[in-house]
Amino acid sequence: MSVLVVGSLALDSIETPFGSVKDAVGGSATYISAAASYFVNPVRLVGVVGGDFPADGVKFLENRNVDLEGLEVIREGKTFRWAGRYHYDLNERDTLYTDLNVFEAFDPKIPEKFRKTRNICLGNIDPVLQRKVLLQMENPRIVVCDTMNYWINGKRAELEETLKMINILILNDSEARLLAKEPNLFKAAKVIRGMGPSIIIIKKGEHGALLVTEQIVFSAPAYPMENIFDPTGAGDSFAGGSSGGLHGPRISLRRI
Amino acid sequence: MSVLVVGSLALDSIETPFGSVKDAVGGSATYISAAASYFVNPVRLVGVVGGDFPADGVKFLENRNVDLEGLEVIREGKTFRWAGRYHYDLNERDTLYTDLNVFEAFDPKIPEKFRKTRNICLGNIDPVLQRKVLLQMENPRIVVCDTMNYWINGKRAELEETLKMINILILNDSEARLLAKEPNLFKAAKVIRGMGPSIIIIKKGEHGALLVTEQIVFSAPAYPMENIFDPTGAGDSFAGGSSGGLHGPRISLRRI
Repeated sequence: MSVLVVGSLALDSIETPFGSVKDAVGGSATYISAAASYFVNPVRLVGVVGGDFPADGVKFLENRNVDLEGLEVIREGKTFRWAGRYHYDLNERDTLYTDLNVFEAFDPKIPEKFRKTRNICLGNIDPVLQRKVLLQMENPRIVVCDTMNYWINGKRAELEETLKMINILILNDSEARLLAKEPNLFKAAKVIRGMGPSIIIIKKGEHGALLVTEQIVFSAPAYPMENIFDPTGAGDSFAGGSSGGLHGPRISLRRI
Repeated sequence: MSVLVVGSLALDSIETPFGSVKDAVGGSATYISAAASYFVNPVRLVGVVGGDFPADGVKFLENRNVDLEGLEVIREGKTFRWAGRYHYDLNERDTLYTDLNVFEAFDPKIPEKFRKTRNICLGNIDPVLQRKVLLQMENPRIVVCDTMNYWINGKRAELEETLKMINILILNDSEARLLAKEPNLFKAAKVIRGMGPSIIIIKKGEHGALLVTEQIVFSAPAYPMENIFDPTGAGDSFAGGSSGGLHGPRISLRRI
């Protein structure tokens, strides 16, 4: 059993009240793949980087048995870059800059041998690209999809088209309220289920996550953490772990 | 098995975005007793009301088998009154007025037949009064105590004395941070355990509650609610249900 991951590979520059880092390997596809690799083997990655993507970033993924046949390397281009600054309340951050670089013209091409992958995790990228990926896949079993306020506000119509093609949507509480235009999370999940996905997972940071289906509401607490330095990639890692866990050998789809 | 409840009996006037009510029977002792009555029998109440406390408020408690021998009625006095207005976010409220009335001179006297009650739930009142209650009890088995920011800010030294005499402290997340002077809830719980109570229960509203002991952190989700009209008394009811549940016949102290 494998899982296909599509998303960004990035070089992140991050400031928190506790320290800072420059050009650290990141991006949704990186975090999702790393987390999913604890549950499924192999993880198949589709993404794009520039000639400046560090060799140890590639090594990191290879060591986790991530199949990089779908990783496009544009030698003369530069990797997607994001910079952000977190506040003392690590739930709040400001984006300092976003340089799309090679990601601007990203047109995901699924390698032939990846197209029959049954389980798909679509990282938080343009819903048009998410749909392009799905249109190349042959009969997927389950599609997990992440999104964010940027696409909900800026590309709602495109996002709604994509939602019709997926099974599980993962988003955070404020994004769920925004997408559904409904402040109550349980009502919001119902509204979003009406848009397509039969299962909604609402992330609530330190308060854990809710899984909502037609029949059930399941609340999972967050692991208790006494020291938190940098939450970058936490949502992606959660999506990757969830996708990997769902798709792994120990869990049957009949259970959900 | 019975539980002794000490707290306020009040007439609450409440405005929410969804409606309003005037002089509704409320107060911490009322809510705690009603909730505890689902688990233990009888509940023993200690509190004070004025001659204006309505007969149906008394009836409400009697119907739940609450023993009112400890209810002092000051015929010529007026019952404690509180008025508040909730915002659209029901987690936020403004106090419009507080009239202590007969509560101002409240000096809890525990009836002789109540003094051997093994299980005690101290509602959210002045920590000096909470301690006066405990000093009249004979060898209690377990003492649950509620408090709030008003006492943490205004009577910290008195509260700290009371904390040395209790087993379980119930408070909400912002109160835990305030009392411990520590933003991380798990670290805050450790700090508060150092003040006396071996078990800390931190309420997080719609996000449920955390129980923290030396060995464990247990996270309980909140019951999923699609429509919320008025959260007044929710924390008191939670304290009453927890006290009753802990003290009921089905749960042994050895389990915690």
